[in-house]
Amino acid sequence: MADTKKKSVLVIGGGSVGTIAALNLEVGGLAEVTLVLRSNYEVVKEKGFTIESIDHGALEGWRPSHIRNTVPDILKESLPPYDYIVIATKNIPDIPPTAVDLVAPALGHANTHTTLVLVQNGLNIEVPFLQRWPRVTVLSGVSLIGSAETEKGKIVQDDRDRLLIGAFGRGGEEDDVGEGEKDKKAETFVTIYSAGGKTDCVHSTNVLHDRWRKLVYNACLNPICAVTGLDTGRIRLVEQGEVLEGLVRPAMREIVEAAGVVADVKLDGGVVEFMIGVDPLELFLKPSMLADVEKGNFIEFENLLGEPLREGKKAGVPMPTLEVLYQIARAVQWRTKEARGLVAVPAKRTA
Amino acid sequence: MADTKKKSVLVIGGGSVGTIAALNLEVGGLAEVTLVLRSNYEVVKEKGFTIESIDHGALEGWRPSHIRNTVPDILKESLPPYDYIVIATKNIPDIPPTAVDLVAPALGHANTHTTLVLVQNGLNIEVPFLQRWPRVTVLSGVSLIGSAETEKGKIVQDDRDRLLIGAFGRGGEEDDVGEGEKDKKAETFVTIYSAGGKTDCVHSTNVLHDRWRKLVYNACLNPICAVTGLDTGRIRLVEQGEVLEGLVRPAMREIVEAAGVVADVKLDGGVVEFMIGVDPLELFLKPSMLADVEKGNFIEFENLLGEPLREGKKAGVPMPTLEVLYQIARAVQWRTKEARGLVAVPAKRTA
Repeated sequence: MADTKKKSVLVIGGGSVGTIAALNLEVGGLAEVTLVLRSNYEVVKEKGFTIESIDHGALEGWRPSHIRNTVPDILKESLPPYDYIVIATKNIPDIPPTAVDLVAPALGHANTHTTLVLVQNGLNIEVPFLQRWPRVTVLSGVSLIGSAETEKGKIVQDDRDRLLIGAFGRGGEEDDVGEGEKDKKAETFVTIYSAGGKTDCVHSTNVLHDRWRKLVYNACLNPICAVTGLDTGRIRLVEQGEVLEGLVRPAMREIVEAAGVVADVKLDGGVVEFMIGVDPLELFLKPSMLADVEKGNFIEFENLLGEPLREGKKAGVPMPTLEVLYQIARAVQWRTKEARGLVAVPAKRTA
Repeated sequence: MADTKKKSVLVIGGGSVGTIAALNLEVGGLAEVTLVLRSNYEVVKEKGFTIESIDHGALEGWRPSHIRNTVPDILKESLPPYDYIVIATKNIPDIPPTAVDLVAPALGHANTHTTLVLVQNGLNIEVPFLQRWPRVTVLSGVSLIGSAETEKGKIVQDDRDRLLIGAFGRGGEEDDVGEGEKDKKAETFVTIYSAGGKTDCVHSTNVLHDRWRKLVYNACLNPICAVTGLDTGRIRLVEQGEVLEGLVRPAMREIVEAAGVVADVKLDGGVVEFMIGVDPLELFLKPSMLADVEKGNFIEFENLLGEPLREGKKAGVPMPTLEVLYQIARAVQWRTKEARGLVAVPAKRTA
């Protein structure tokens, strides 16, 4: 074990992913968690979380050590720097505030003490962090959990928590923190996250592989379900699998090819069929973007779909299917922007 | 004028297109119209149509000579054959009953007396009619009207009626009715349709041109609006026109190319920009498929999108954009099938 002193961990985002992360960190006894909540803050403050978890069982009234409804400003509040800041919010760079702006007050005078852990999906999510704070270690957290917040403060986790932790930019950009140091921070985080024994958290030394692999689902099935309004069980049924064959598989194959060309990531040959069938057999599961569209929320399409598309095209990979899905996703996002008053529509067309 | 004796015309479909067609045919005094209504029959029977028309002004309580709520069975009812049967329903070949089955009782023992006029969109819509009744003349009606049924029995026509009438298969397949005969039937129809002087109905001798040209809108903007939930005014605004450039124009260019390769139809160079701007400037107009999706109706995507896609691919034209739109449209249609109980979804996934 790398370090047994209790670590101070700030978890930003108390939805279905962040809450289970906070739970795992707390139950191991090696971390003292402050969880930042937004929409469910009042409910959780009053009666705690109600959790139904395949890993942890049924919990009633659970709370981490501390909850807050704002991101702490450690300079103004004279707080010591956190050992780890876990960001488990949706990542929607096209809608302010960005994740970097959200985190900034909790990082204070950026230093090499605090390690950021981005438990978020998609490609190049670390770039704005490393641009703003080149000396801070940023860890990748690829969560393969199946969980949802079914009502405010109620988390249903119906598929096992599996978390891949690894350092971004390992062997990549120049900085003062060497690979050994980054890997050690990743290993320590895995240790404190796993200490409760209820989860499957492992140290990964190939973050790009983890991320491109998950994109086979997230850049393809996820937006396809969002724009068709069908869950992953139903999309398989349409016209006896013809839409799976005519749309889902071609999209996934574009990601597989881009992974190889862009990132030298060789995904295993069965990854397309694996991702088509990855959701638990007994469920008709709504991927995150479909759930968000139905709730009138913004969708995380830029990092999940836009970035792999741009990277693939830049590298000369033909991506006609993802291109169309991306443009449709932009229009869907714009519709939500209009509903939220972020774009103005003139009373009459003028051109 | 080819014929001044009053013609008997059966118009099937009393929605926004069929009702204005019935109106034009009646006001000219050269046709006696029987209009077949479905969902609005009771309302129209009781108080007639309320029509606000840019061509005809405001009409209250208007009815054609006859209205019915079923397609007449001329053999059982001992009715004389109609001179013309105008079909102005949506054309949804993937959902029964098909247009051919709908018309059959009104045609009786198919003969060369009755002329069919398909005022419907899309490609190859005449094929099932000519397969079943090879000797019947089938006319193409390409309607460029802007109208909607805003409530049962209330028709708002806010863009001028323009109707292109021409014989399908002119110069094409073998039959007993020569080109001259077909053209004469088309001209007679144009005459009786135009006699009231309130519409712009012309005889077209290039049906394929008319149909492929309208597909530039109907195979592209129409489904794009349906899947994004945005009208034609809004889709132009998304990301400062980038979705127009990244999605709408590429789709339209595929239709333009397919028109040339498949049908030797040379569309004018400005057709893409024309169709992008074709809706009246002051309106944010919902194309038919978007209106249908919002109402929970089936969409006419097989003839508008599926047929040009299949024809284009068969001829070797790359159609990557339309392919994705088509597969998404199939999934959207399936969603409506499920809502209407036409497909069964097991309680649990089994594979």
